[in-house]
Amino acid sequence: MTVPNIKLNNGHSMPQVGFGLWKVANETCADTVYNAIKVGYRLLDGACDYGNEKEAGEGVARAIKDGLVKREELFIVSKLWNSFHDADQVEPICRKQLADWGVDYFDLYVIHFPIALKYVDPAVRYPPGWNYSEEEGVQLSNASIESTWHAMEDLVGKGLTKTIGISNMQGSLILDMLRYAKIRPATLQIEHHPYLVQPTLLQLAKSEGIAVTAYSSFGPQSFIELEWQKAKDTPVLFEHPVVTKIAEKHNRTPAQTLLRWSTQRGLGVIPKSNNPDRLKQNLEVTDFDLEQSEIDAITGLDRGLRFNNPTDYLGTLHIFA
Amino acid sequence: MTVPNIKLNNGHSMPQVGFGLWKVANETCADTVYNAIKVGYRLLDGACDYGNEKEAGEGVARAIKDGLVKREELFIVSKLWNSFHDADQVEPICRKQLADWGVDYFDLYVIHFPIALKYVDPAVRYPPGWNYSEEEGVQLSNASIESTWHAMEDLVGKGLTKTIGISNMQGSLILDMLRYAKIRPATLQIEHHPYLVQPTLLQLAKSEGIAVTAYSSFGPQSFIELEWQKAKDTPVLFEHPVVTKIAEKHNRTPAQTLLRWSTQRGLGVIPKSNNPDRLKQNLEVTDFDLEQSEIDAITGLDRGLRFNNPTDYLGTLHIFA
Repeated sequence: MTVPNIKLNNGHSMPQVGFGLWKVANETCADTVYNAIKVGYRLLDGACDYGNEKEAGEGVARAIKDGLVKREELFIVSKLWNSFHDADQVEPICRKQLADWGVDYFDLYVIHFPIALKYVDPAVRYPPGWNYSEEEGVQLSNASIESTWHAMEDLVGKGLTKTIGISNMQGSLILDMLRYAKIRPATLQIEHHPYLVQPTLLQLAKSEGIAVTAYSSFGPQSFIELEWQKAKDTPVLFEHPVVTKIAEKHNRTPAQTLLRWSTQRGLGVIPKSNNPDRLKQNLEVTDFDLEQSEIDAITGLDRGLRFNNPTDYLGTLHIFA
Repeated sequence: MTVPNIKLNNGHSMPQVGFGLWKVANETCADTVYNAIKVGYRLLDGACDYGNEKEAGEGVARAIKDGLVKREELFIVSKLWNSFHDADQVEPICRKQLADWGVDYFDLYVIHFPIALKYVDPAVRYPPGWNYSEEEGVQLSNASIESTWHAMEDLVGKGLTKTIGISNMQGSLILDMLRYAKIRPATLQIEHHPYLVQPTLLQLAKSEGIAVTAYSSFGPQSFIELEWQKAKDTPVLFEHPVVTKIAEKHNRTPAQTLLRWSTQRGLGVIPKSNNPDRLKQNLEVTDFDLEQSEIDAITGLDRGLRFNNPTDYLGTLHIFA
């Protein structure tokens, strides 16, 4: 299974299908990453906040040692957590994350959220999470996105990452960034599924030459295991008749159909699975084509429904207002 | 008719109901402003882009000369147009606008849109508008919102405006601004009507101590006269049964009911009318109370429908993506 590449605005290439490490358990992470590489994944999408970068790195090291892959054939993604937005904290935490992975450079390093939280020493708590308490709320840092972005740019100059990108950002903030960016963001990672189609944001990214990666491609699915009521109250996409009908016609799973819908729209995808069969299936999502009418039917499920929203789970940090 | 004040985060007070100058024709503007002051309006909401600040100033001058009002009893609002975001252009254009109005200071000066367009010399074209052509699109400036905001802050230091605010901004950009603002924005002006209720943005503004002013309180109404198809295709709020039923019960017009819905939610409003009777009626929107169930019923009309969106009328500048 050959995965197509997306050509980034800095000349680098990014595999269109990758393996997402969010919610991959520490106990199984090294094996899962090893297996993912074995079945053909080349992009691994990690983050400080996922709390499993060491284990992911172990899987990578074993795969390289066993000759499955070379470092330069992998595309390793990590993300700057909110607590490390202060300009002088960006390089130290990136270096720590590189050490956790056991690699010299990231292929892509991303601002995880446009939210600057107060610094938390990794020696005290790591990953620091949202650092939220009912009594004190969240404690913010005064780092602007501009100051953080310039620190991200410095990482490229120092060879710590080949590419830098953004995530969970809205139109007006992206347009503002593009005013001062010396290195333009190459990628934008967003929640994207048939219930949250975001056509205008995709249009913006396209016109600005920013590649988009979809997360939570299966919609509520990712959040049901977190026991989120909003997700439980939403019709499961894997059983949605619009999706299942198209899946049956193409003799694919609903998951594959949803991923093909995204990849045919030009997006990268980063599904996660702990199941070896599904791991492989999720990679096979660029070797068949949906008809335009099928794409449109799935797009028509849009209801502007966002799950990963701090407004909902923290009651503050209204970045999507 | 006494209009309540909204207390701003800098200690100043802003009348909750004002007169909006958008689309007030140059020929009638001076008389309309004079009449608005005569019937009791104290807040006048203008902007470079409305192209009628000289005429509005004439109405103000006449009203002061005739003893209807003193300057310090008025709350004059103006806005920085997109073409003047470059830090070194902010003070000159503000001074020009003050000269047009014939006043020494604004009570509130607002960044009209979070969009920095290339500078246009007022001697060449004024107001400059969107400066859009099919061939060249829009020409942007590289001014960041931070650099523009710091120039806005300098206006306060120089006494050219008492208060500074923002307009048409989204959550993540506002949160970013609050990281670097030495003077926090006191007000946020947004499109707001029953078809675009924006509860999370209001929640953000409230929690950050930013007063919100609604524009286009009548929804599609403001845009039908511009011949916008999207507005024509939307049920008129003045005839919407949910609105008319509540209006009849309170023996008010639908317009008054819509404005009361906004003011009871804590927002300022800036309706416009060229009709002297309606001018007066629109001011009488804080002397009756809707029941919570009535407010909820109107809020329930929300459909996330935005009319004033550059994406729709320019096909670019996706600030609401």
